[in-house]
Amino acid sequence: MNPPHPQTPTPPHTLSQARALDAQDPLADYRRQFVIDEPGLIYLDGNSLGRLPRPSIKRVKQVVEHEWGQRLIRGWGDGWFTAPQRIGAKIAQLIGAQPDEVIVADSTSVNFFKLVMAALAARPDRPRVVTDDLNFPSDLYLLQGALRLSGPDRHLVRVHSADGLTVPVEALQAAITPETALLTLTHTTFKSGYVYDMPAVTELAHQAGALMLWDLSHSVGAMPLALGAAGADLAVGCTYKYLNGGPGAPAFIYVRRDLQESLLNPIWGWFGQKDQFDFKLDYQPGPGLQRFLSGTPPMLSLAAVEPGLDLLLEAGLDRLRAKSVQQTEYLISLWQALLQPLGVSLNSPRDPACRGSHVSLGHPEGLRIDRALIEEMNVIPDFRYPDNIRLGVAPLYTSFVDIFEGLSRLRRVLVERLYEKYPAERPAVT
Amino acid sequence: MNPPHPQTPTPPHTLSQARALDAQDPLADYRRQFVIDEPGLIYLDGNSLGRLPRPSIKRVKQVVEHEWGQRLIRGWGDGWFTAPQRIGAKIAQLIGAQPDEVIVADSTSVNFFKLVMAALAARPDRPRVVTDDLNFPSDLYLLQGALRLSGPDRHLVRVHSADGLTVPVEALQAAITPETALLTLTHTTFKSGYVYDMPAVTELAHQAGALMLWDLSHSVGAMPLALGAAGADLAVGCTYKYLNGGPGAPAFIYVRRDLQESLLNPIWGWFGQKDQFDFKLDYQPGPGLQRFLSGTPPMLSLAAVEPGLDLLLEAGLDRLRAKSVQQTEYLISLWQALLQPLGVSLNSPRDPACRGSHVSLGHPEGLRIDRALIEEMNVIPDFRYPDNIRLGVAPLYTSFVDIFEGLSRLRRVLVERLYEKYPAERPAVT
Repeated sequence: MNPPHPQTPTPPHTLSQARALDAQDPLADYRRQFVIDEPGLIYLDGNSLGRLPRPSIKRVKQVVEHEWGQRLIRGWGDGWFTAPQRIGAKIAQLIGAQPDEVIVADSTSVNFFKLVMAALAARPDRPRVVTDDLNFPSDLYLLQGALRLSGPDRHLVRVHSADGLTVPVEALQAAITPETALLTLTHTTFKSGYVYDMPAVTELAHQAGALMLWDLSHSVGAMPLALGAAGADLAVGCTYKYLNGGPGAPAFIYVRRDLQESLLNPIWGWFGQKDQFDFKLDYQPGPGLQRFLSGTPPMLSLAAVEPGLDLLLEAGLDRLRAKSVQQTEYLISLWQALLQPLGVSLNSPRDPACRGSHVSLGHPEGLRIDRALIEEMNVIPDFRYPDNIRLGVAPLYTSFVDIFEGLSRLRRVLVERLYEKYPAERPAVT
Repeated sequence: MNPPHPQTPTPPHTLSQARALDAQDPLADYRRQFVIDEPGLIYLDGNSLGRLPRPSIKRVKQVVEHEWGQRLIRGWGDGWFTAPQRIGAKIAQLIGAQPDEVIVADSTSVNFFKLVMAALAARPDRPRVVTDDLNFPSDLYLLQGALRLSGPDRHLVRVHSADGLTVPVEALQAAITPETALLTLTHTTFKSGYVYDMPAVTELAHQAGALMLWDLSHSVGAMPLALGAAGADLAVGCTYKYLNGGPGAPAFIYVRRDLQESLLNPIWGWFGQKDQFDFKLDYQPGPGLQRFLSGTPPMLSLAAVEPGLDLLLEAGLDRLRAKSVQQTEYLISLWQALLQPLGVSLNSPRDPACRGSHVSLGHPEGLRIDRALIEEMNVIPDFRYPDNIRLGVAPLYTSFVDIFEGLSRLRRVLVERLYEKYPAERPAVT
C-alpha cells in the first residue's frame, strides 16, 4: 500500500484538523461496524457502556429466534454449554492468556467475590489484603464483605493516593508485608485512568508470597495486556465497556493454569460440578476453570459478547492502543488549548505510558457542566465524584471529530455558562 | 358466553379425545403467543427451558436496537436501573408476595448462596441446616459450600426420602431441632414432582426458631403460591422454566419485608450499595431488597423475562393450575392405559394435590428410551438419573394433543424396541 498523500497542513484545533486525522486513521472503517445513527450525538462514554456492534444484532436475533425459539433445550448441546469457555478463549487472546485460562460467567462483582474468597482460602495464615483508594468502590465493598466472612483477623489496607491520580509503586511496596495474602488493584483506575505497571506490581506481590488479582475492566479491549508474561495469578474484567458486550453482559475470570486446581470457587453451583448431569449429591469441582462457574449462564447476554470480541481481534490491540494514545493525546492538546484557560484541570496522567483510554477533566462545577453537556449539547461523557468529567475514547469507533466536537461543546458550556441553570446535585442516574 | 356445546362422546385414549380436550380448553389460545412452528415436534420440557413467547422477540429487539443501540448509557435512566424491582414486583404477584419483597438478579445458584449465607449469619449459634435428598443437587452443593465458609461446627442434615418420591412432614419434623438455623427445600421436587405443603413445613421451621428458605424453581408459574400467607422467610426461583424467561435468565429472590433490613447479602457489589453513584469507599447496604443485588444485571437476559410474566398474569395462575392438574391427570391416565402394561412405572405422586406440573415415568432402560424418543420420535422429554423420563406440562402452551402424542410415541418406542440401538450411557448434554 502507498503511504498517505502528503496532507495540506491543517490549522490546529479546528474541525478540519479533526477530519484530517480521521481521514488518516487506518481503523476508521471499524466505526461502520457499530450502530451510530443519532445525528449530532457525541458519545464519549464507551468506557461505561460500549456501543452496539452491528453483528451483535444478528447474533442476538439468532439466539432468541432460532436457538431458543426453535432449538429449545437442544440449544445447550448446540453451543450454549461451551459458550463460557469458547468466549473466554477469545478474551484470553486479548489479555495475553492461554485459551483455558479464561471463562465467562456472572457479573464482575460476583466473579471478583469468587476470586477474593478463593485467594483468601489459599493463604489462610495471612491476615492482610492490600488495595488502593483509586480502586472501584465496588471492588472495595466486595473486599470488605469477603473479609468479614473470612475471620476476625483479616483486614484490608487501602493504600492512599496522595494526588488522587496515581499510586507510586513504592507506596504499594511499603504496604505489602509477609502477612499479605492478596494484592488487588484495578489495572486502569476508573477515575483518573492511571495504569499500573502490571509486571512490576505483580512481582511485588509475588516477592512477598501474596497472590495478585487484577481488575481489568477499564483496560481490556483498549490496550494489549500480557497476563501470562506478567505472571499474574488472578483477574476479572468487564465485557460491557471496551468489549462492547451489551448492558450488564457477563464478566470474565482469569486464573493462571497452574493455580486452577488448587483454588476453590465459594459458590458451588451445578455448572461448576464435575459431570453435572450425573446429579450426584456431593459437590466435586469440575476440571480447570469450569469450577469457577456457578449457576446457569444468562445466554442472551452471554451470546451478545462474542461479536464485539471478533471485531477487536480483527482490528488488533496494538493498532487500537496506538490509536487510543493518539486520541487521548489529541484530547489533551485540545484541553490545553480550549479548556485549561477556562479553569478546567487535567485529572489524568500526562504521560500516555501510564494512562488508559479515558481522560478525566476537572472543574468545581463539574456536575452541572456534565448535565449541561448532556442536555444542551448532546454530548455524553460520564461523571465521577467529586468533579471528574470523564471522557472515554473507544478506539474501535471513536473518531477525532467526536473528540473535537466534545471538547468544543464543553468549551461552549463554559464560555456561555450554560451549566448555571442546572442544580448542583446528582441526577438520579448517571 | 355460552357453555360449550355438548360434545359427542369420544373414545378414551385416542387422538380425537385429545383434540376434544384441547377444544374445550379455555386457555388454548395462549399457545399462539408462543413460537411453536417445528412440525411434528412434541416438546415436554418446558420445566427445563420454557418456550419463547412471541412478545419476547419484540422486547429483546427493542432492548438491543433501541435501548442499547440508540439510548446507550441513557438506557439505565430509562428503565434498566429499576428493572430488577419492576420485574420482581410482577413475580411477587405470582408467588403471593408484596411488590417490594421480590427482586431479580443473578442466577438461581448465586441467589441461593446469598440467602443461605444471610440466613446462617442471622442464626450464628445454631450449627444445623436441614434439607432433603429430593432437593436439587445444585442446592445441596451450594449448601455444602456455604457451610464450609461459615465455621467448623456447621453441618448439613439431609432427610432421606424412603420411596424416592416424597418426604413425610414427620420425617422433617424429626430432623428439625432447636439447633437448626435453616430449613431449605425445593417446593416442587425436581425429579418426582412432589410438592411440599408450604404453610405446614414453614410452620415446622418457625416452631424451632429456624428460618425457612424455599426454592420455587419448579413451582413458580405452574401453580399459585402464597408465600406471604405461609409466613415464608426466604425464597429463590428460576425464571427460565415455567416463567419462559429464556436460557439462563436471571433468577429472583424473595425476602419477607420485615426481615430485609436485618439480613446481609455476602456479595457486596455496587448495585447493593446505598446511593451507589456517590462512590463512597465503604459499603453501606441499600434499603430493602436492593441490598441483595450485587453487580450490574445482564439486561438483555433480564428484559426477556418480562413478557412471559405478563402472559402468566393475564392467564391467571388459578386457571393455569386447574389446566395443569387436568393435564397431568390425563397424562397419568394415558400412562396407565398405554405404558404401565409395558413395565413403565409412575415415579411421581398419584395425588394431584401434592404433585407439580411434571410427571416422571420410570423404566430400567430409561436413558436409552429417552434418546430414542428424541432421535426417532421427535419428542423432547427430560431425563433424570437413574431412570426418570420427566415429562413437563406447561399449561400456558402444552396441548392435550402434545401429551397424547408424547405418550403414544413413547409407547411405540417400547413396543418396537426402538431404544435398543442407543447406548446405555449418558449423552454429553441433556
